[in-house]
Amino acid sequence: MIDKNRTAKGGIELTLSALEKAEILVEALPYIKEFHGKKVVIKYGGAAMGDCMLKEKIMQDIVLMKYVGMHPIVVHGGGPEINTMLKRLNIKSEFIDGLRVTDRETMEIVEMVLGGKVNKEIVAGINASGGKAIGISGKDARLIMAGPAEDSQRMGFVGKVGQINPEIIATVIENGYIPVIAPIGMDEEGNSYNINADLVAAAIAVAVKADKLVLLTDVPGLLKDPRDPESLISVLKISEVGKYIEQGIISGGMMPKIQCCVEAVRGGVGRTHIVDGRVSHSILLEVFTRQGVGTMVADQ
Amino acid sequence: MIDKNRTAKGGIELTLSALEKAEILVEALPYIKEFHGKKVVIKYGGAAMGDCMLKEKIMQDIVLMKYVGMHPIVVHGGGPEINTMLKRLNIKSEFIDGLRVTDRETMEIVEMVLGGKVNKEIVAGINASGGKAIGISGKDARLIMAGPAEDSQRMGFVGKVGQINPEIIATVIENGYIPVIAPIGMDEEGNSYNINADLVAAAIAVAVKADKLVLLTDVPGLLKDPRDPESLISVLKISEVGKYIEQGIISGGMMPKIQCCVEAVRGGVGRTHIVDGRVSHSILLEVFTRQGVGTMVADQ
Amino acid sequence: MIDKNRTAKGGIELTLSALEKAEILVEALPYIKEFHGKKVVIKYGGAAMGDCMLKEKIMQDIVLMKYVGMHPIVVHGGGPEINTMLKRLNIKSEFIDGLRVTDRETMEIVEMVLGGKVNKEIVAGINASGGKAIGISGKDARLIMAGPAEDSQRMGFVGKVGQINPEIIATVIENGYIPVIAPIGMDEEGNSYNINADLVAAAIAVAVKADKLVLLTDVPGLLKDPRDPESLISVLKISEVGKYIEQGIISGGMMPKIQCCVEAVRGGVGRTHIVDGRVSHSILLEVFTRQGVGTMVADQ
Amino acid sequence: MIDKNRTAKGGIELTLSALEKAEILVEALPYIKEFHGKKVVIKYGGAAMGDCMLKEKIMQDIVLMKYVGMHPIVVHGGGPEINTMLKRLNIKSEFIDGLRVTDRETMEIVEMVLGGKVNKEIVAGINASGGKAIGISGKDARLIMAGPAEDSQRMGFVGKVGQINPEIIATVIENGYIPVIAPIGMDEEGNSYNINADLVAAAIAVAVKADKLVLLTDVPGLLKDPRDPESLISVLKISEVGKYIEQGIISGGMMPKIQCCVEAVRGGVGRTHIVDGRVSHSILLEVFTRQGVGTMVADQ
Amino acid sequence: MIDKNRTAKGGIELTLSALEKAEILVEALPYIKEFHGKKVVIKYGGAAMGDCMLKEKIMQDIVLMKYVGMHPIVVHGGGPEINTMLKRLNIKSEFIDGLRVTDRETMEIVEMVLGGKVNKEIVAGINASGGKAIGISGKDARLIMAGPAEDSQRMGFVGKVGQINPEIIATVIENGYIPVIAPIGMDEEGNSYNINADLVAAAIAVAVKADKLVLLTDVPGLLKDPRDPESLISVLKISEVGKYIEQGIISGGMMPKIQCCVEAVRGGVGRTHIVDGRVSHSILLEVFTRQGVGTMVADQ
Amino acid sequence: MIDKNRTAKGGIELTLSALEKAEILVEALPYIKEFHGKKVVIKYGGAAMGDCMLKEKIMQDIVLMKYVGMHPIVVHGGGPEINTMLKRLNIKSEFIDGLRVTDRETMEIVEMVLGGKVNKEIVAGINASGGKAIGISGKDARLIMAGPAEDSQRMGFVGKVGQINPEIIATVIENGYIPVIAPIGMDEEGNSYNINADLVAAAIAVAVKADKLVLLTDVPGLLKDPRDPESLISVLKISEVGKYIEQGIISGGMMPKIQCCVEAVRGGVGRTHIVDGRVSHSILLEVFTRQGVGTMVADQ
Repeated sequence: MIDKNRTAKGGIELTLSALEKAEILVEALPYIKEFHGKKVVIKYGGAAMGDCMLKEKIMQDIVLMKYVGMHPIVVHGGGPEINTMLKRLNIKSEFIDGLRVTDRETMEIVEMVLGGKVNKEIVAGINASGGKAIGISGKDARLIMAGPAEDSQRMGFVGKVGQINPEIIATVIENGYIPVIAPIGMDEEGNSYNINADLVAAAIAVAVKADKLVLLTDVPGLLKDPRDPESLISVLKISEVGKYIEQGIISGGMMPKIQCCVEAVRGGVGRTHIVDGRVSHSILLEVFTRQGVGTMVADQ
Repeated sequence: MIDKNRTAKGGIELTLSALEKAEILVEALPYIKEFHGKKVVIKYGGAAMGDCMLKEKIMQDIVLMKYVGMHPIVVHGGGPEINTMLKRLNIKSEFIDGLRVTDRETMEIVEMVLGGKVNKEIVAGINASGGKAIGISGKDARLIMAGPAEDSQRMGFVGKVGQINPEIIATVIENGYIPVIAPIGMDEEGNSYNINADLVAAAIAVAVKADKLVLLTDVPGLLKDPRDPESLISVLKISEVGKYIEQGIISGGMMPKIQCCVEAVRGGVGRTHIVDGRVSHSILLEVFTRQGVGTMVADQ
Repeated sequence: MIDKNRTAKGGIELTLSALEKAEILVEALPYIKEFHGKKVVIKYGGAAMGDCMLKEKIMQDIVLMKYVGMHPIVVHGGGPEINTMLKRLNIKSEFIDGLRVTDRETMEIVEMVLGGKVNKEIVAGINASGGKAIGISGKDARLIMAGPAEDSQRMGFVGKVGQINPEIIATVIENGYIPVIAPIGMDEEGNSYNINADLVAAAIAVAVKADKLVLLTDVPGLLKDPRDPESLISVLKISEVGKYIEQGIISGGMMPKIQCCVEAVRGGVGRTHIVDGRVSHSILLEVFTRQGVGTMVADQ
Repeated sequence: MIDKNRTAKGGIELTLSALEKAEILVEALPYIKEFHGKKVVIKYGGAAMGDCMLKEKIMQDIVLMKYVGMHPIVVHGGGPEINTMLKRLNIKSEFIDGLRVTDRETMEIVEMVLGGKVNKEIVAGINASGGKAIGISGKDARLIMAGPAEDSQRMGFVGKVGQINPEIIATVIENGYIPVIAPIGMDEEGNSYNINADLVAAAIAVAVKADKLVLLTDVPGLLKDPRDPESLISVLKISEVGKYIEQGIISGGMMPKIQCCVEAVRGGVGRTHIVDGRVSHSILLEVFTRQGVGTMVADQ
Repeated sequence: MIDKNRTAKGGIELTLSALEKAEILVEALPYIKEFHGKKVVIKYGGAAMGDCMLKEKIMQDIVLMKYVGMHPIVVHGGGPEINTMLKRLNIKSEFIDGLRVTDRETMEIVEMVLGGKVNKEIVAGINASGGKAIGISGKDARLIMAGPAEDSQRMGFVGKVGQINPEIIATVIENGYIPVIAPIGMDEEGNSYNINADLVAAAIAVAVKADKLVLLTDVPGLLKDPRDPESLISVLKISEVGKYIEQGIISGGMMPKIQCCVEAVRGGVGRTHIVDGRVSHSILLEVFTRQGVGTMVADQ
Repeated sequence: MIDKNRTAKGGIELTLSALEKAEILVEALPYIKEFHGKKVVIKYGGAAMGDCMLKEKIMQDIVLMKYVGMHPIVVHGGGPEINTMLKRLNIKSEFIDGLRVTDRETMEIVEMVLGGKVNKEIVAGINASGGKAIGISGKDARLIMAGPAEDSQRMGFVGKVGQINPEIIATVIENGYIPVIAPIGMDEEGNSYNINADLVAAAIAVAVKADKLVLLTDVPGLLKDPRDPESLISVLKISEVGKYIEQGIISGGMMPKIQCCVEAVRGGVGRTHIVDGRVSHSILLEVFTRQGVGTMVADQ
């Protein structure tokens, strides 16, 4: 009989025999085969960034994926750290429709926090878990050419993706590195733009012809009834999106995420997933179990 | 609480959650990293060949090793199948010191059974588990050049390894294949020799500069007291071998296995292991747990 | 004046000066140029396998082809050896329409003889002539995926080619090896099938996009009058095949051979040849003389 | 006659004919040949970072070097920007011997400014001049493994270089990118260290086996008499360093720079230069004229 | 103020400061970027071959182009040297429409002078300027397969290009060499033909998919009024050619040059130029200045 | 019985059957294997250049060598053609010790004839036999750096080899071409030198680490008695050279040839041969028969 207890660290401690562990490894084999050499773009953000233990598990998941032959590509957000720094600097932000109005001074801080702090912490975390990560901002090698988002006069340097130049990603993944991308774009005049990380992740997934896009969120996925986690919609066909919007099932913060997935699928990304980042090892679960977790948005 | 029951198939069925499985995968990460790109020669024989379920698990272990970046190289024996066929053909064998006297007629059957039956069954087994195996006899690409063993007049075509030409192994492993090698040698006149598979495995491990040699056996390892499985010697230093022989602890069938390990270590193979092939997933256990199973023969 | 005598070895001994030999070498130059880098599939079987001297000459031809820049790929049959072994085991075979009814026990022997004996003898022969051969069964690297031939209930494990996975062939020929292929196929369940070697040779020629397919037989080619060797049809256009079948000129054992050639031609193989394997160096003659030997089946 | 005037932009405007310009291009040919394929590490800092026009010229110099076949590798400092940000955050720094005492809070800001702001501005600048730059911090790919500098208890996270892992640099320069390196080091526990950029530049020059190390400063080079720019020492032999220190000629801020050069030369870097970054195109002048500018520190 | 004087060598001596020179180098950067990796075919002939100083400058231009990343391919003529040698041998030539009637004896001299003297002098010149040149006649590697020009009975071995086999050019330029091509063609019977170098340059530009074809001439370009150098037509569209021929503006020796350019443009060469070879560094001026020199013949 | 007659073309016509020819091909196999991938430098000169039929056979030999996997490298002389041209130009040559005094005017003609005529004729001949040749003078890619031979004041531009830069040879042979080298050297000032082709061949054989050097001559080899062709010395050890010189057996024109061989052997060339170029296919005979023709100069 096996003892299974929540440990002090909050994880699960299993007193499994080595043999039992070996059998579990072998169970992963079909998934390892299926994704061998495949590119998986992971949008990393939300609660999974704040909780140290969750963070460590995500780093482990990413490194494991690399070692068993996949090519994980990480895109990160950075909301809370930006807020903290702006507060320390007494810079107040106006928000319109949930988006921060970003003047030049704010943009400077955003870029510095995303590219110089959050990005490097993730890089260090992956390295600590045994991977070889390299941090890339959208300015590096002109990765993300951007322009102002539609309402630029009011929103300032909130940007949208213009063109992705993915050569640098190919260079680093072929040489064994895991790219970690900060969602900063640049226009031809050298202005920086703060772009929503989900949008960046989707655009990069399309540009690198990824096989999978995983968006980590703070919800279990798309729920028919937001109060009932059991009402999870496991598979959402593109053709159903309109209907669910009308019914109000897709709404609020879920709306742009679903749209990212739809765009990625239309751009040729095989599978896109909205996954609960608050669950330990949610990426591995998504990749290595067919039952899946969260909501898959797919063509058919 | 976890239910753990022997299943009808004789395996262990664990009702673990997906999350618990993910954690176990992550535990393997340090070993996956350590052995990335390393060559591991596995002598496959004994009970592990006769039992269908054990066989399937070993095939899975080997394929998993390949997918997570190692280069397994399989050398197999084939005792029982040879006996069966010789019996069916009414060919009687004389045995001297446990070795079959091998006249030309017997040799022909041995080669046919090893290269045409046992070898191809292993190849098919690995392929069925999702690997890409290719069977190689010592004649292919002149892999194993051999000569008669010392007492050739009495023993006939019982051989010993002369020279290994390992280029074909490099060619196939670099192209993603798992080589499965039948222990048939050839001399310059084209005569075939039946060579002990442990000897072949050790010689190939040395020739390909393997990082690990694993000999599957039907015992738990080297025991101080053969009747007490708890008396397992986990680590045997080369310098201790003489002493243990004098004490009679190394004797009988264990003698040549230990000698293979010693030769391999002296030839530069980092670690050599005598492992109980009757235990499920014994190779994975050996590779992916530091506690180890069986006896490791090492330099120091 | 030159003395030309049959020698004891049965070959021709020419007392040519070195100069005369050099001139003959130079005559081969246009053919060497024409076939440089080309793939030639050779079905090796029949009398040419039984006669030691013929066999040695064929091995020499194949090695020479490799050294002057072609890529010979050998597919072999193995009829007589199978019969001998079945007889020794007292396994009786029923024949329907000239094909052996192959139950599981018979199949086991067939596979063992073809893959473990005949295949390795050819490999050893090529190696002895200075080439680097590697034996491959259809199970290796899943080369020949097969299924039961049409009348499977009566015929047992007599198979037909499903799909060829030719990557392993590309790997070995690019690395300087000569592949020697046993005509054993495998289905997804791991069952082995005995497939006619001509069919396998044709399917492989198509799969590797060979420039030439040579089927060695025990007749001079397609004869208008089977009793008159002078009535050889040198070139047979595909469009004429129907007519010759109606006239009974293509019949018996020649029927399936012609069909193999037709399929190969339709699959894109430039030239296909039915050649008398009983003639010394018949492959070289076919490749290095424009007059040709035997019957060429071609598109136009 | 040629008109030569300082322009509004502060540059020199030459009304040279196209032909005259062509002749000047041709004059550069011997230098282009000499440095073809060579690695040049450039420490970029000081006044050359503050002045927009100087900055633009340096970016141009670096891009030109890349296009004519050299491999420039940029290491940057970032003093003034760090001060500005610390001031905005009301973080006060203590200085000991001219080095900032760096507690964890300060280090966080230092890293953010260097890696997220200064680094990306240089990257954008090089890109704007037509190069393909990629920003790298010492954490990326574990480029700079570091530890505390000698007086760590007092100095906090002021670090020194432990080990350079230069593989990522090789990867990016071979793929046509210009690496721009922030002088942040990391220890095995993931702590960040602020390391003097000159030291980092020297260590990287040694690790990549650079042919040249160029340290941009705010002085004309080593002067015998600091008040007299005409007293420049053009070539400083390592053997003379001791003498000049005793004489007080090497002192103050020049001391550590000279020591960097000495270490680099001892580590195998062919030529090291202390160059006045306040002079337009000082890097090109150094690389493309034999008269040189500033002080060269060399073996003999 | 700058002193600019014609020097004894006939060049211009500028007493520019190093800084001024650096700025000029930087001005070339956009052109260096634009032509990076591009193939430029240069027809070298006329006055530029006779004047030592002009010749040296052209060699320098070509070597500089190679070093900054372009692939110059030189095709040369050889008129005066041929005349001189024919005169020394007392071989008199008849000329029809400005073309030399070339009998077999004359052809032998032409080939010898072009391939053995002029070609090698250019090779040596480029080598002396620091490049690595290799001389190629149209016979080498069957580069220029040719046949008699239209009026072969009268003109003898005056040839026209049949087919270009450009593999040898790819081989040498990829290995860092500058090919220097003598305009000798060969037919299948091994006869040599003297082909107009402009025609050869155009045919090679098309065959190697060059980005630019530069024909050096002894005139400033196409002039509206041949007596007025100011009447230069800078850009000539293909669609205008007919009109200019009718108007007599394109006539005489300019006619075949324009036709070469038209053919090259139609064959896919991006830009073609007729440039005054008597001007120092005219190639560099053409490549590195957008104002251009001479006449560009282009599609639109 | 075979009819063997001298044909009108002067060759031997053998009425051999195809089979007999095939057997001869097979006889060549061991030699083809032995020399696979080996470099063979052939000095081509003397009578073998004057006789059309001999010439054609030598071209065939060279092309055959290339096609069966060797790398022939041809160095040619050009005596008679030079004489003819000098005579036509009324340039008289003085000879000292059998060497032509070469003033600048003479050198110009020598270079033109060797590089522009003889070289290209050989190139065309090889191409006509189906090879891909490329002519190279010692100026191309600075292949042969030279200086004046010892008695330069009297001898003028008679040169000796300074340094060989063999990169261009590696480039062309790896790409499938046969290099044909004119024995023109160049000094740093760009002066051309006429160098003895035997010396060039030996120097190139050493520089490319050739396996064999073959010097074609107009004598059967080294004869003990020059009047008796039966007195051929088949193998000459380096240690015997002194003795034979003393005895006057090595003398006259044989002296420098033997010295070339000795130098080549000392420089690491495996085997060197002095072979009678007047014999048809003498190169093939040398390469493809172990009995050998002419005199081999070897280490032991």
